[in-house]
Amino acid sequence: MTSEEGALSHSPRTRAALIDRLAERLGPGGVLRDPADTAPFCSDWRGLYHGRTDAVLRPNGTEQLAEAVRLCAGAGDAARIVPMGGNTSMVGGAAVGEDGSELVLSLSRMNRIRAIDPVDMTMTVEAGVTLKAAQDAAEAAGCLLPLSISSEGSATIGGVLATNAGGNNTVRYGNARELVLGVEAVFADGSVFDGLRRLRKDNTGYALRQILVGSEGTLGIITAAVLQLHPRPNQIEVALCGVDSPEAALDLFQRFRRADPSAIQAFEYMSGTGMALVNALIPDATLPLAEPAPHYVLVELATVRQDGTLRDLLEAVLGEALETGAVLDAVIAESRAQRLNLWKLREEHAEAQKRAGGNVKNDVSVPVSRVPDLIRRASEACERLIPGVRIAPFGHLGDGNIHFNLVQPEGADRDAFLARDHEIMDAVCAVVRALDGSFSAEHGVGKLKPYMMPDWRGGAELAAMRRVKHALDPAGLLNPGKILPETEDRPGAAS
Amino acid sequence: MTSEEGALSHSPRTRAALIDRLAERLGPGGVLRDPADTAPFCSDWRGLYHGRTDAVLRPNGTEQLAEAVRLCAGAGDAARIVPMGGNTSMVGGAAVGEDGSELVLSLSRMNRIRAIDPVDMTMTVEAGVTLKAAQDAAEAAGCLLPLSISSEGSATIGGVLATNAGGNNTVRYGNARELVLGVEAVFADGSVFDGLRRLRKDNTGYALRQILVGSEGTLGIITAAVLQLHPRPNQIEVALCGVDSPEAALDLFQRFRRADPSAIQAFEYMSGTGMALVNALIPDATLPLAEPAPHYVLVELATVRQDGTLRDLLEAVLGEALETGAVLDAVIAESRAQRLNLWKLREEHAEAQKRAGGNVKNDVSVPVSRVPDLIRRASEACERLIPGVRIAPFGHLGDGNIHFNLVQPEGADRDAFLARDHEIMDAVCAVVRALDGSFSAEHGVGKLKPYMMPDWRGGAELAAMRRVKHALDPAGLLNPGKILPETEDRPGAAS
Repeated sequence: MTSEEGALSHSPRTRAALIDRLAERLGPGGVLRDPADTAPFCSDWRGLYHGRTDAVLRPNGTEQLAEAVRLCAGAGDAARIVPMGGNTSMVGGAAVGEDGSELVLSLSRMNRIRAIDPVDMTMTVEAGVTLKAAQDAAEAAGCLLPLSISSEGSATIGGVLATNAGGNNTVRYGNARELVLGVEAVFADGSVFDGLRRLRKDNTGYALRQILVGSEGTLGIITAAVLQLHPRPNQIEVALCGVDSPEAALDLFQRFRRADPSAIQAFEYMSGTGMALVNALIPDATLPLAEPAPHYVLVELATVRQDGTLRDLLEAVLGEALETGAVLDAVIAESRAQRLNLWKLREEHAEAQKRAGGNVKNDVSVPVSRVPDLIRRASEACERLIPGVRIAPFGHLGDGNIHFNLVQPEGADRDAFLARDHEIMDAVCAVVRALDGSFSAEHGVGKLKPYMMPDWRGGAELAAMRRVKHALDPAGLLNPGKILPETEDRPGAAS
Repeated sequence: MTSEEGALSHSPRTRAALIDRLAERLGPGGVLRDPADTAPFCSDWRGLYHGRTDAVLRPNGTEQLAEAVRLCAGAGDAARIVPMGGNTSMVGGAAVGEDGSELVLSLSRMNRIRAIDPVDMTMTVEAGVTLKAAQDAAEAAGCLLPLSISSEGSATIGGVLATNAGGNNTVRYGNARELVLGVEAVFADGSVFDGLRRLRKDNTGYALRQILVGSEGTLGIITAAVLQLHPRPNQIEVALCGVDSPEAALDLFQRFRRADPSAIQAFEYMSGTGMALVNALIPDATLPLAEPAPHYVLVELATVRQDGTLRDLLEAVLGEALETGAVLDAVIAESRAQRLNLWKLREEHAEAQKRAGGNVKNDVSVPVSRVPDLIRRASEACERLIPGVRIAPFGHLGDGNIHFNLVQPEGADRDAFLARDHEIMDAVCAVVRALDGSFSAEHGVGKLKPYMMPDWRGGAELAAMRRVKHALDPAGLLNPGKILPETEDRPGAAS
């Protein structure tokens, strides 16, 4: 960072004294210093970044964490902090810098589920609880934590909230943001914001939890949260449909929405190219339709109702769509095993693309009505750029969020293809921009994409973000280099 | 406000020059100066505050509004601004100060509906559009804008968002916050934040719209918004139920939630005392049950489904509840007219209480599971304080939001009763506090309740709010005296 307060020195002696002091305060197991122990924290999940650190802090609770932040902030020789949960960011959101000046603050020891209330339908969880563990605890209490992402076994509640995670069920339950009633967080000065409220209505001042959610650990460290749970569904139906165009996929979404929007738990689009890769490269992933289709939809309906009418609703919508030709063919799962098999076709898309060769990912969103335009226009642009490139978009059509992924042409050179990743991303983003979309729907900005912020979110918006950052973290202590691009000016000085 | 930059002078000559300049830039009808014209803007809806101003600014669009803010901010003789929509705040959220130094900025000429997209299910509206006009426009496009509050004929979208309005349908659709995809706003420096995005997923930096929503015009002036619409229901069922305790009311809520949570469009609690006042004092408001009950529930179910099963679901839940004694008696509306009649019993509560004499209002919330405790313990506390006081709580049980209203004892002196309003509010709030609740669920803080903030939201939370305020409005230009209590210190200086 570039503020004057942020011009930190790192004299080895005072640095070592700070870490000694932290080790003393955090107790046994509270600080990792051995390079063998700290190494796993210094590389990100995608392998994009490799940094170094001389200490990983592992506080055992909010008070210890706050004290650690105060020590880091207050030392003459201040140390910047990279908060880390499951380290599963797709954009280097918890990447550690290369100069060794940053300390990692791992939430891994803060992994208690503090409370579950099945009448309120809320749970209070610490930041280091994995999403999967939180889902399991909710289920054990007869409730549903509907947030679900592919990294849920490792991703933690703190990271999930800090990045406002999305996933397959956003169409029904919203993003992580919509599931948070309250947060506890530690600010850059080590003060503790005790906002663990369990209220559905509370208009008492600025919604600090809302600005912490999605701030990627740059404004404060979320240490615990109150999550809104939902009742568990009693009926679930899943169907896979072949359609002949992205427009037909959108038309099918509207048909289901007209029938019962609250029943749509997931509405996923897949390209014919992507499905063919899954069929070819993933064992036991077989298309259960008579003929391959140009495009596919996976729809999951669910309801708490126990009246057995959900299947009727699904069959009525699909029957009408088949009759009018809006759907070419469809299969409905008859058992839980069949449901999982249909989902496997969707979930193995990323793995199949990896096996097919070099691939470039774009996590983009547009207004729902523009998804067909996005798929058509971005496909054309990529084909123009690299003839023969395998265009395999898939994702959450019901939210306008498509993972517009591209796989190298068959037999082409992998490295030559990957060398053009920015060209490809720029081509896709130009289409997204023209359709009033976003360059990052779910994954956030992290360390990978701050350079895009001035162009996409510049002017008054970025200036206000800088002011907020400077207000809450004037020394730039928290998660340096994420979200906001570096600037020559003092952050927050732009009036 | 108290920052040094905020120490404004008001020399009559330069003040007049500023207003002349504003009148020139805003054109004909753009500035009201005649006291007969400005008077309606100087009193709040509840008659709690009476201020004065020498000019009401009425920009015709975002560019004019931004220019007006720049002129106010930049004049050597800066003028503070009170943004105003329908002026329906319950807490003086748009109250004008008494010293005449504040200018009113009315959004009334910014009343265009810019776009509606029934595929995206979004509408883009300017801040001065009334909530009712927005609802009507959504309906004309075949969609539902589910936000509904009693002042919707006058309240405007800008005010509704600035105060994060709630209402009867929050249990199903969330607060105003959950219905906002994007905002356009003018910051205190006159810069325009163009955040009118129509995206359900967009993780590109801090969620500025989320901190603007609920900030009561103190961080920026919302000039337009993109609202998330919903499909219109095709079946609606309404029932009025007599129950013998608040616990039974909560039990009934859980029964409906277990049957189909997505069908619950409203779940309202009413006390026997409040219902008796409505019956006695409101013409044509007759209890359609054989016997009065100690407590009541009004439940509205709705679904987009067209299969005619909603009535079955309602009857099944009520039948079981009647059988077990959880519900004493119930009536189901057989027509739209009957539905409206049942709703009238709920909606006339405030009017009946007004007719019954002096009354004191408390807009409080607690976790849903604690609503019965709230009703019991606050009733006991108020009865202890003023024996014979008529305790008439009602409201949104499904959200934990109860309007804990009290009516003077029969035949007591009105003024003597009202003189004890703060004693009563303190007694109710002490119970709310003990139950981890909020002193303002829906109405906000405004000018009426900033004094409660240090006690309820103090420490790191209030300090962070002050920092954010100072970051975005360092001179305290926007809506002075709202939300944040005045302080001797410079706002934002508390590090």
